Amino acid sequence: MIKIAYLGIPGSYSFAAAQKYFGQSCQLLPAKSVKEVFKKIADKSVDAAVVPLENTTTGSIAETYDLLLESKLSITGEIILRVRHQLLANTDKVKLENIKYCYSHPQAILQCETFLSNYPEVELRFTSDTATAAKVVSQRKKLNEIAIAGIPAAKFYGLKITEADIEDNKHNFTRFVVISPKPNKKGNKISIAFSVAHVPGSLFRSLKAYAQNNLNMTDIESRPLYGKPWEYIFYVDFEVNNQERELTATLSAMKENCHFLTVLGRYKKGKIYEA
Amino acid sequence: MIKIAYLGIPGSYSFAAAQKYFGQSCQLLPAKSVKEVFKKIADKSVDAAVVPLENTTTGSIAETYDLLLESKLSITGEIILRVRHQLLANTDKVKLENIKYCYSHPQAILQCETFLSNYPEVELRFTSDTATAAKVVSQRKKLNEIAIAGIPAAKFYGLKITEADIEDNKHNFTRFVVISPKPNKKGNKISIAFSVAHVPGSLFRSLKAYAQNNLNMTDIESRPLYGKPWEYIFYVDFEVNNQERELTATLSAMKENCHFLTVLGRYKKGKIYEA
Repeated sequence: MIKIAYLGIPGSYSFAAAQKYFGQSCQLLPAKSVKEVFKKIADKSVDAAVVPLENTTTGSIAETYDLLLESKLSITGEIILRVRHQLLANTDKVKLENIKYCYSHPQAILQCETFLSNYPEVELRFTSDTATAAKVVSQRKKLNEIAIAGIPAAKFYGLKITEADIEDNKHNFTRFVVISPKPNKKGNKISIAFSVAHVPGSLFRSLKAYAQNNLNMTDIESRPLYGKPWEYIFYVDFEVNNQERELTATLSAMKENCHFLTVLGRYKKGKIYEA
Repeated sequence: MIKIAYLGIPGSYSFAAAQKYFGQSCQLLPAKSVKEVFKKIADKSVDAAVVPLENTTTGSIAETYDLLLESKLSITGEIILRVRHQLLANTDKVKLENIKYCYSHPQAILQCETFLSNYPEVELRFTSDTATAAKVVSQRKKLNEIAIAGIPAAKFYGLKITEADIEDNKHNFTRFVVISPKPNKKGNKISIAFSVAHVPGSLFRSLKAYAQNNLNMTDIESRPLYGKPWEYIFYVDFEVNNQERELTATLSAMKENCHFLTVLGRYKKGKIYEA
C-alpha cells in the first residue's frame, strides 16, 4: 500500500485532498508543517505527499514554493478544493444561543465573520488548524462548545453539522499539489520557476517564447526577495495540449533569457471538488 | 491631527508600519479585519489606513487586493518591515525550563519552529494575532507564561525580551501599503490591476508596452478565479523614474489589450525597516 503524507491532522483539508486524489487504497500520514512533509518524502518514509500551494482568498503559500525550489522533488498532480466551513457540535440538538466556546483557526473565524456576528456572546478559542478544532470539541464532549471546520473533519471526528456552509465567500478555493520524488513525463499542465535580470523588459523577453509557441499561461507570480533587492523569482504555470515540440522550443528559448530555470513538475490539470 | 486606521490591535505589525510612516503626530485607530479598515476610510471615520499587502513567506494577502479592486480607494504609500519574532515575558528573570504556556498566532509559532523544538514541554496557546498574545501575557501577569510577538508589541505592553529574533527565516518581509480616499499624482512606483483574455499570448501582448517604453516591472501576480474558469486578474507594480510620457503611452497601449485596467495607486517606493 502506498504511503502519502499530508499537511495537518486527520480531517484537514490536505487530508481530504489526498483522499480525493488517491482514493481509499493508501495509507495517509499526517505532518505538522510543509517542511515536515518534504522531509518525509526526502527520507523515503512516504511515497508522495499532498500540500496546499495557493488559496484564492489568502494567496499563494510561499513556503511550499520555496521548499519545491530547494528540493529535488516534483509536482506530479493537482487537486482543487472549494473551502466550505461548517459549524460542528457533539449533538444535533444544539441551541446556538447557549453556546459558550467556538474553536477554530483564526483565518476560518475571519472567513465566517458575518455568521459569527449574530452570536457576539460566543467566546472564540483559536487552534492551530480547523481539524484540530473539530478534534478538541469531539474530545471534550461538551454540549455548549462548537467548532468551525470542514465536512472531512466532521466525518472523521463524528461531529454533527449544526449550520452548513457558513463561510462569507462562496468562491474560496485552495489548490493542492501532489509532490513526488520522481517527475512525471506526461501531463497537460507544467509548473516552472525562473529568475530574470531586474532590468526593463526582461520578463517580457522571457515570456516571448510562450506567445510565439501558442502555449497558454494559466498562472504567473513573482516573489521579490527584499533581502536581495535585485533578485526576483517568477512562478509560471501553463497548459500543454499535444504541443511537445512547442514545449521544448519554449523552454530552451527561455533558458537563454533566464538566470536559472527549473521545471517544478508536469501533471494532469486538477479537478475541482467540494471539500 | 490626522486619523489612521491599521489592522489589528496596538503593537501589531500594521501598527508599527503606521508609526514608521506617519510618525507620532497622528491618531492610530485599530481595526479587526482588512474589511473593517476599508469601511473606516469609506465612511470617513479615518483619513487613511495601513494594511499588509504581501509577505515573502506566506504570500500575497489576496483579500487586500480584492478590497482595493472593489473600492474607489488608492494606494498612496508603501512600507516594508522585516518580520522579527521575540520571546516576551513579564520579567527578565524568566527560566525557559519552567514555562508552562506560550501564546502566539499559529503562523508565528510555525515560523519559530526550530527555537520551540528545544522546549517540547511548553504548551502552545493560539491567539488571533501576535500583539494579542503579548496583551494576554501582560494582563495575566503570570511568571510561567510567555508570548511570541514583535518589538512594537513588547514596548506597548511593557514586556521583556527573553530571547531575541527567534524566527527561523531572517529574510521574512511584509509589504504594507497606505490606503487613502484620493490618489496621489506623483511617485516613483505604480500598482495596477488588469484582466486579459484567457488565450495564448494575451498576457505577453499586454506587457509589450512596458518593454517598449523601458519601464521596470517589480512585481507581477495573477489570481485564477476558479469559480469563473476563464477569468484572470493580474496585479503588476512598476517603477516610473521621470518617465511621464512613457507611462501614459504604456497605460493607453495596455488598455487596448485588456478587458479592464485600473490604477490602484501611485506612491513613493517604500523604505525597508526592522520591525
